Amino acid sequence: MKHFSKPQIVVDKNKCVRNIKKMAAKAKRHQLTFRPHFKTHQSKEVAALYAQEGVKQITVSSVEMAFYFASFGWSDITIAFPVNIREIDRINELNEQIDLNLLVDSVRSVELLNEQLSAPLGVFIKIDTGYGRAGVEASDESEIENVARAVRESSMLSLKGILTHAGHTYHADSVDEIENIHRSTVEQMKEVKKLLQKSGDEVIISVGDTPSCSLSEYFTGVHEIRPGNYVFYDLQQYNVGSCTFDEVALILVCPVVGVYPKKEKIIIYGGGVHFSKQSITLNGTKIHGQVVRLKENGWGEAIPGTYLTGVSQEHGTITCKDPDYLASLQPGDLIGIMPVHACLAVNLLRDLYFV
Amino acid sequence: MKHFSKPQIVVDKNKCVRNIKKMAAKAKRHQLTFRPHFKTHQSKEVAALYAQEGVKQITVSSVEMAFYFASFGWSDITIAFPVNIREIDRINELNEQIDLNLLVDSVRSVELLNEQLSAPLGVFIKIDTGYGRAGVEASDESEIENVARAVRESSMLSLKGILTHAGHTYHADSVDEIENIHRSTVEQMKEVKKLLQKSGDEVIISVGDTPSCSLSEYFTGVHEIRPGNYVFYDLQQYNVGSCTFDEVALILVCPVVGVYPKKEKIIIYGGGVHFSKQSITLNGTKIHGQVVRLKENGWGEAIPGTYLTGVSQEHGTITCKDPDYLASLQPGDLIGIMPVHACLAVNLLRDLYFV
Repeated sequence: MKHFSKPQIVVDKNKCVRNIKKMAAKAKRHQLTFRPHFKTHQSKEVAALYAQEGVKQITVSSVEMAFYFASFGWSDITIAFPVNIREIDRINELNEQIDLNLLVDSVRSVELLNEQLSAPLGVFIKIDTGYGRAGVEASDESEIENVARAVRESSMLSLKGILTHAGHTYHADSVDEIENIHRSTVEQMKEVKKLLQKSGDEVIISVGDTPSCSLSEYFTGVHEIRPGNYVFYDLQQYNVGSCTFDEVALILVCPVVGVYPKKEKIIIYGGGVHFSKQSITLNGTKIHGQVVRLKENGWGEAIPGTYLTGVSQEHGTITCKDPDYLASLQPGDLIGIMPVHACLAVNLLRDLYFV
Repeated sequence: MKHFSKPQIVVDKNKCVRNIKKMAAKAKRHQLTFRPHFKTHQSKEVAALYAQEGVKQITVSSVEMAFYFASFGWSDITIAFPVNIREIDRINELNEQIDLNLLVDSVRSVELLNEQLSAPLGVFIKIDTGYGRAGVEASDESEIENVARAVRESSMLSLKGILTHAGHTYHADSVDEIENIHRSTVEQMKEVKKLLQKSGDEVIISVGDTPSCSLSEYFTGVHEIRPGNYVFYDLQQYNVGSCTFDEVALILVCPVVGVYPKKEKIIIYGGGVHFSKQSITLNGTKIHGQVVRLKENGWGEAIPGTYLTGVSQEHGTITCKDPDYLASLQPGDLIGIMPVHACLAVNLLRDLYFV
């Protein structure tokens, strides 16, 4: 790492593999299809670690990402994003190359797809179990029926399943709350499945947030899990209780450009264009990352009271309450920071350095 | 714009040129060197609009950005970021090609530069006038003296000036507060200049935030301004009062992927990886953008009560209180959104489409 001159993502490969193995084992134990979300890493190297564990089915969040992984031989991909019909030409192209699944959550989307697809494909109905983002509300039986009927009547689409993302677990205050959200999600999905069975549709249930998949052992009736973030985890996941500190497999390493001991402050080259502006609140303070001790070939413990507390475009401001650590630094040094959200940092920097 | 299939930045070229002309005229009126910040646009096309107005000196925030603009013939560049000594090889390379100015704010940075530069260059001492990010505090006379002395004693550096960024104006609550921050900044900079004069250093004063440069007419004693954001402005600038709604020269155009009339909600393809997670609070609601009416070749008025209220990685959630507008939309349509922070959105998407 000594040669770094700019903000750089560093991935601990062993931790990464351990995270993958652990989740793959859990999926196996519960007889679940394991279809991990690859938006977290967007990396052919991390994808190769998955391939070593026998993973063949994946999730992505954009048509471009699907093309990227298809180019490395991944041939069974779900784009877990409500279909963007404006990309139909690329979708048709992709659908010729791989087994492609798309998401729909309205009659209109089904109609548009049916009109514009050049070959059949499978769809999942996106269900909202409480997150409040995309999807038909789990309780909206008539709308679910309408969408399912539109799929049934289409010539190009076959209904493969129902899919949800319980993203509200990311903002849960306790492990118990995550378990409750997850159980409620699973129950709602089972009700939707029953509803569809009445009309003769046999569907699978796909769930997928990292906190639930990390913490829960309740998967009765579930067929598929799609966690992504857990491959690296991050400060947000550590904070909600999804993982131990030692399981976090990714940090950013940034050059120090200023040390201001009187103000207990360090300025780094590393800002919103590297970390994103994502934050969590810890003991009343908004933070964007936790400073960790850098080692020869990786990183160790958290530096107490030392957080990335501000990010502008390229600047990062670190508040440091550890006088020894502060005294040890000068401009030109490197500093390690565990980010709040791994996915966004990876999306910004892309290039991963493995230790 | 009808052909857009993914989130796309759209720039109104006329508004952009008008913003440039207005600021260039102000600089001329006050006999100021106009050294606009190019991190806002990072675009050779917008740079060409500046060249048409006779601008020759520019500001950037990274070594890479300096190389990018140098490759299009820009030859007088200040990197307004505390020097990152780890990039010294690239800095030396750049310094051979152009007139380069760097920022220092510690004795150690001056020493490192002096040891590792292969040819002389000019530096500015970065002063903190209250923003609290990088820089020597304006009131810290001994530290300012120390840094200036180190420059004086170096063989490679010449002290060109003192530079500040009063970034706290971005979060001001009123136009009066911006004016007060600006005046205080200018007064503090003049005091620092006086202090340095006592030791025989003749320096210029460089200031540069968009709100101050847009609103104030007080530049007595100032030599150079470096506003950047004003070329596009954005919702944050409109909100603090730096510009009119009509002066904002940039929006994002995004595909609609879901319309949920019962929930007064629209889901778009356009999230944190396009807008960044930057937000402002308007009437108690955190928003990431304001929806505007799209026209054949540009955009018009704001849609009342219709904001981008949530962004995850690729999803954007729009809350819409305008039933007519909501009823007019369906999946596959395009929607225009004025972002909170233009610089971050541009940094994420890069490709600008001009109307």
